[in-house]
Amino acid sequence: MEFSALLTSAGINIAVCILFLSLYSVLRKQPHNFSVYFGRRLAEEKFQKQDDYFSFERLLPTAGWIVKAYWCTEEEIRQVAGLDSVVFLRLFIFSIRIFSITSLVCVFGVLPVNYHGKEITHDHIPTEQLNVFTIANIIQESQKLWVHCIALYIITISACILLFNEYKYISRKRLAHITGSSPNPGHFTVLVRSIPKSDNELLDDTIRNFFVNYHGSSYLSHQMILRKGHFQRFVDRAERAYRKFMRVRLSVSERNGRSSMSRCGVCGVRASSFQIYRNKFIEAKKADLTNPEVVDAQKNCPGALVFFKTRYAAVVASRVLQSSNPMLWVTDLAPEPRDVYWSNLWIPYKQIWLRKLATLAASVVFMFVFIIPVAFVQSMMQLEQLRKMFPNLRGLLNKSFFARVVTGYLPSVVLLLSLYTVPPLMMLFSSVEGSISRSGRKRSACLKILFFTVWNVFFVNVLSGSVLNQLNVFTRPKDMPTMLAELVPKQATFFITYVLTSGWASLCSEILQVYNLVYNFFSKCIFCCHQNTEYVYSFPYHTEVPKVLLFILLGFTFAIMAPLILPFLLVYFCLGYLVYRNQILNVYYPKYEMGGKLWPIMHNTIVFSLVLMQVIALGVFTIKHSPVATGFTILLLVATVLFNEYCRHRFSRIFEAYSAQVIEQRNPSPPSGDPGRGSIYLSSLRRHGRRLSELPWPLRFCVARQDVIELDRDDEQSGRMQEIHQHLQDAYSQTPPGAEGSSRSGGQVPIELILEDPAQEASESSQELCDTVQEVSEAHEHSIEEAAGKAHCV
Amino acid sequence: MEFSALLTSAGINIAVCILFLSLYSVLRKQPHNFSVYFGRRLAEEKFQKQDDYFSFERLLPTAGWIVKAYWCTEEEIRQVAGLDSVVFLRLFIFSIRIFSITSLVCVFGVLPVNYHGKEITHDHIPTEQLNVFTIANIIQESQKLWVHCIALYIITISACILLFNEYKYISRKRLAHITGSSPNPGHFTVLVRSIPKSDNELLDDTIRNFFVNYHGSSYLSHQMILRKGHFQRFVDRAERAYRKFMRVRLSVSERNGRSSMSRCGVCGVRASSFQIYRNKFIEAKKADLTNPEVVDAQKNCPGALVFFKTRYAAVVASRVLQSSNPMLWVTDLAPEPRDVYWSNLWIPYKQIWLRKLATLAASVVFMFVFIIPVAFVQSMMQLEQLRKMFPNLRGLLNKSFFARVVTGYLPSVVLLLSLYTVPPLMMLFSSVEGSISRSGRKRSACLKILFFTVWNVFFVNVLSGSVLNQLNVFTRPKDMPTMLAELVPKQATFFITYVLTSGWASLCSEILQVYNLVYNFFSKCIFCCHQNTEYVYSFPYHTEVPKVLLFILLGFTFAIMAPLILPFLLVYFCLGYLVYRNQILNVYYPKYEMGGKLWPIMHNTIVFSLVLMQVIALGVFTIKHSPVATGFTILLLVATVLFNEYCRHRFSRIFEAYSAQVIEQRNPSPPSGDPGRGSIYLSSLRRHGRRLSELPWPLRFCVARQDVIELDRDDEQSGRMQEIHQHLQDAYSQTPPGAEGSSRSGGQVPIELILEDPAQEASESSQELCDTVQEVSEAHEHSIEEAAGKAHCV
Repeated sequence: MEFSALLTSAGINIAVCILFLSLYSVLRKQPHNFSVYFGRRLAEEKFQKQDDYFSFERLLPTAGWIVKAYWCTEEEIRQVAGLDSVVFLRLFIFSIRIFSITSLVCVFGVLPVNYHGKEITHDHIPTEQLNVFTIANIIQESQKLWVHCIALYIITISACILLFNEYKYISRKRLAHITGSSPNPGHFTVLVRSIPKSDNELLDDTIRNFFVNYHGSSYLSHQMILRKGHFQRFVDRAERAYRKFMRVRLSVSERNGRSSMSRCGVCGVRASSFQIYRNKFIEAKKADLTNPEVVDAQKNCPGALVFFKTRYAAVVASRVLQSSNPMLWVTDLAPEPRDVYWSNLWIPYKQIWLRKLATLAASVVFMFVFIIPVAFVQSMMQLEQLRKMFPNLRGLLNKSFFARVVTGYLPSVVLLLSLYTVPPLMMLFSSVEGSISRSGRKRSACLKILFFTVWNVFFVNVLSGSVLNQLNVFTRPKDMPTMLAELVPKQATFFITYVLTSGWASLCSEILQVYNLVYNFFSKCIFCCHQNTEYVYSFPYHTEVPKVLLFILLGFTFAIMAPLILPFLLVYFCLGYLVYRNQILNVYYPKYEMGGKLWPIMHNTIVFSLVLMQVIALGVFTIKHSPVATGFTILLLVATVLFNEYCRHRFSRIFEAYSAQVIEQRNPSPPSGDPGRGSIYLSSLRRHGRRLSELPWPLRFCVARQDVIELDRDDEQSGRMQEIHQHLQDAYSQTPPGAEGSSRSGGQVPIELILEDPAQEASESSQELCDTVQEVSEAHEHSIEEAAGKAHCV
Repeated sequence: MEFSALLTSAGINIAVCILFLSLYSVLRKQPHNFSVYFGRRLAEEKFQKQDDYFSFERLLPTAGWIVKAYWCTEEEIRQVAGLDSVVFLRLFIFSIRIFSITSLVCVFGVLPVNYHGKEITHDHIPTEQLNVFTIANIIQESQKLWVHCIALYIITISACILLFNEYKYISRKRLAHITGSSPNPGHFTVLVRSIPKSDNELLDDTIRNFFVNYHGSSYLSHQMILRKGHFQRFVDRAERAYRKFMRVRLSVSERNGRSSMSRCGVCGVRASSFQIYRNKFIEAKKADLTNPEVVDAQKNCPGALVFFKTRYAAVVASRVLQSSNPMLWVTDLAPEPRDVYWSNLWIPYKQIWLRKLATLAASVVFMFVFIIPVAFVQSMMQLEQLRKMFPNLRGLLNKSFFARVVTGYLPSVVLLLSLYTVPPLMMLFSSVEGSISRSGRKRSACLKILFFTVWNVFFVNVLSGSVLNQLNVFTRPKDMPTMLAELVPKQATFFITYVLTSGWASLCSEILQVYNLVYNFFSKCIFCCHQNTEYVYSFPYHTEVPKVLLFILLGFTFAIMAPLILPFLLVYFCLGYLVYRNQILNVYYPKYEMGGKLWPIMHNTIVFSLVLMQVIALGVFTIKHSPVATGFTILLLVATVLFNEYCRHRFSRIFEAYSAQVIEQRNPSPPSGDPGRGSIYLSSLRRHGRRLSELPWPLRFCVARQDVIELDRDDEQSGRMQEIHQHLQDAYSQTPPGAEGSSRSGGQVPIELILEDPAQEASESSQELCDTVQEVSEAHEHSIEEAAGKAHCV
């Protein structure tokens, strides 16, 4: 590929990007698109709908959204979109920082060295082959390889410093998030699975006896998880149908200005009737053991949620082995109520290890099967092969511009499209795996997609040729460095175009929300469903994080091999930072928190990228016969691995468990400073009778030398603990919340309006139950109760 | 090698074995060898020394010891030698069982098939080459390979069943051991390391404040670990010199029948003087912060032992993350007092991850450097090469008998001798690693030696040739199965002789205790030190376990390849069972308990052996073009891996942590039986006022549905807790125990008489302090105190 072809490709992409961004700035001003572009704001109902008048301004592209996205503070983002968004954006900040340094070093240091690597007369630059800019242009035993070695050192050291600071920053944020957030039922609750059944005791009693016996002082209550029987499933389905009907009816009645307190016209029942039936069913299950149905229901119980009086007791109960048979009385800290993945709780615990192994095997198999489309893409890069495959296109392919488009643009588009099949499948694998929380499922899917992407996009493309050749390469790990060193520079062209197409284009499609836009257009303008419910999506970390990490991997591996990729990447990261900020602020609504647990994955992948960069450099130095540079690179490699080990020991447990004590440094600078001072400050605060939770968040973040225990004490002193305990009982409702459900903490979006992704299974309906229906039925239920009370009196 | 050569080798070894065993049975009757052969019994002073009269019987070899060793019950062994010995002997029982089955199947099923594999006329069996008995004799695409496949299934399935039962049996034993043992200070104690220092607070206060604050209800007290200063080291050395002198003096005085309450004749001080100096020094360190020496001592404190009121509180404190910086306030359950490895406690916690990585790297390097002697041994196997290397020995080598000895016997002797250098080195590595307990160090060394042995004895010998060739093989993992399948049958001869020499001979040398015998002979008969102190060694699990596991590996891998090895192995295991029983009962004294934690290592290695057997079989079936058998073997391989995963989930956590509740099945048969009945039985016992600890051990083992919590309650109800708490304070003494030290629980050997191994470092002297000296000084100290008391009154 010539330099001019690259410029053509870049030109096309820049044009497309500007077009799309302008289109976005126009489309976002059209009122009928508000549901697409301001989903989160609409959901929180803070967004003032403008009147639907037409003005010429609405058709002019503007850049106001960029300014708005840029000037938003991190603290604001954390409050509206949770810690995970902050972590995700920190990844961009890290990338921009490190690739600014890398670009500076490589474009001004390494690129000229590569260009003048051989003593040849250079042509006019635009007609130069791209290979001239890569390390392949350096002759053997050249003294110039020192420049590459020094560049390697600068990049690695600055990356490690930045990584360490990010890890420290994010772990501090995570701790502050835990101590600073409002009392979370998940902190008080332990999920117990694999409870041993006995014939002569009710399961309910078994659980109570066990926890009263061994955790008597801290046990509060428990709630059994019931697998749904046939009858219950029927009720559920009936209710869902009723709910759908009611929603349509409500929207109609709202428009007509009538009261929404009307009867359901079809079946003559009210929504509360379903609740009554369900409660009756559950009550029936609690009866004596002579009833075979009850015994059956007992057998179907896969576990229970146990509530404790304090956070600390819950942490202890979840960490300590309960029984001498580790397969019985398995305890985990329960996820947040919104985060619980109910259908997976019904999986017997004994299956889970088997499911994990099976999904692992399935993922690996899928990874290898996917080589076929990748190999096809790769074959499209070779114009000669294309001419062989499609002989009747020969005339078209001989035209210079068309050939450029085909070799420079089409392959990565094909790859991109085939990659779209991966996330739903990996999500399915992660569901089957048996994660108890939605966030755990998403993290697991994220990890799978990450492995998949790195393997299939990077390795398979680099080591391409025939499929068989690739596999042979991987059976000889010793030859890997030299093999990679030979092949990576050759693939520079493909990956530069990949950044242009997949990277930039994916940002454009992200901001335009093409799928939702089209869906919205059809549903509103063609089918005229004007009052359709707006669905708000949660942020798809499992697809976006691997994508960004792949570009970081590409950046590092090609930094000294083919520095031309760096400016394009830097543009990607800057644009991505703005786009994702905008999307997080306007479009996505956080359904649950992962508490920054994605960062260790990101950190490890970045360190892996650094190591890969060094391994490839090792291969290059070996090929070019530069033993001293090889030695220095091995030294760097060892140092990088040691750095990662240190980070793992220093930080990783923070992301796994809650600590008994949560120390915050008063300011980020002295990590080994006196931890005593914080506590003195705290105790002086206490003396003045101010509770920590009353402090504004940023101040608490700075002050807090807190603790799970101290949080507990704090709540106890303020008398808030009672309130929390009461709330605990109804926080986890497998069955829809009753009348008290509508008193849910204000300002939150009703849970059923947030969808995981469009392919969400319908079976998860128990969580989707509608608040609107309850509001309708509330008053009626009340009157029934009053009537019953009167009857009783009489 | 011909069959007759094998018989020669076997003949030599059987003769040697009989000779050595007879020699043992004679030597053990000689009174001056009692200290070598009855070390444990002498240490426990239960052994009645016979009078030193001469009788003719003493020179006759007898087999009485075999009978005694065989008829001893497992419970007796557990009581005298701890759970680890039981686990070690269970390994032999498992081996005998599985190799009986394997021998039956392979010698009567596989061996005839191998022998008649090719349609050739067979010679007279003794002149037959050994290759005829291996799988190499089977022709390609033979239907007879089905026999091998079926044998593989029978072996794997029976091994898995036996393994599962062993794991279950041993984990039950372990639980019973924990609940059944006398109150262990280690259960109440937590080791805290990496305590953050503050300038304006004494470290002592920091620790107290922290634990009172976060574990207030259960914190009892704590004890700082102090690194020794120069002065203290001087006092230690002086004391050691004094102690040695006193011991000689005591032995002299005992013989003279004089009182041992005499003054030390050299320096005019008593032993207690040292204690007084040391106490003064420690007291000085506890002074105020203005003293720079104290500040220095504070900085030198690497951690503390924190005592809790209950076992459960200690477990909780050790399991829960204490601080938000996981590198601070690191808690581990403390080892038993006898088990603490004091010199490693002084290592700063921050170094430990680095030390672990460094020792790992050093072990791997050593493993690869060790290839050189192995390659030399291997070259000795080829008679031709030997002739080339030593041309002047040509005449000798041409003689048939001598050639047989050289090829059949010498190589494995050389290998054996070079292997003797490994355990001390690996023990050193494990010390450097920073394990806090002696048992942890031994386990780590055991693991290292195991890897080393399997790699250097099995793999390097199998894949021999030149050193370079071996490394090439390991860079192509895909070709491993076929490679192994080609090479393993060829090495059958070597490994059969290895079993004969290394296996049988090592048992003989073990029972004869050659090193100690010679040492004893020289010290008693030549230098006439008649009253030399008897040192008792603890059992060298780190060398013996890998040895036995290697033979199990050899047994499985050669079972279907070359079944001739199996009878020799079976003899080894039977003989080994008797020999080790005898040694455990008579010679070794358990210094500390590992609580059966070696079993998971054994289990994993055995499963690895099974998998290796299957992988090699896979290679063989591939070479012989038997695709169906290959398919069935892959199925078996997957099933074996799944079995191991299940065992890991089911059992492994029992060996890692104590559970809150320790369930015992009432009898081994129903694993899913009602756990409730046990507790009913227990509560009925309670009602009758009997404490569990009063029950005889086997009954408690059957009954107990106990608990760390229940153990605590039990002790509390009986009022014994107070006693335990008092004992806790002086259980861990870095400095020698004072006058109260002599009240140590009776029947135990004084700690200084048990040596880890002869190469024990002198620096561990703080534990070696002598009880005898204390006894001498006790009365005197008392009188001094009385005098001081009187002076005070005046």
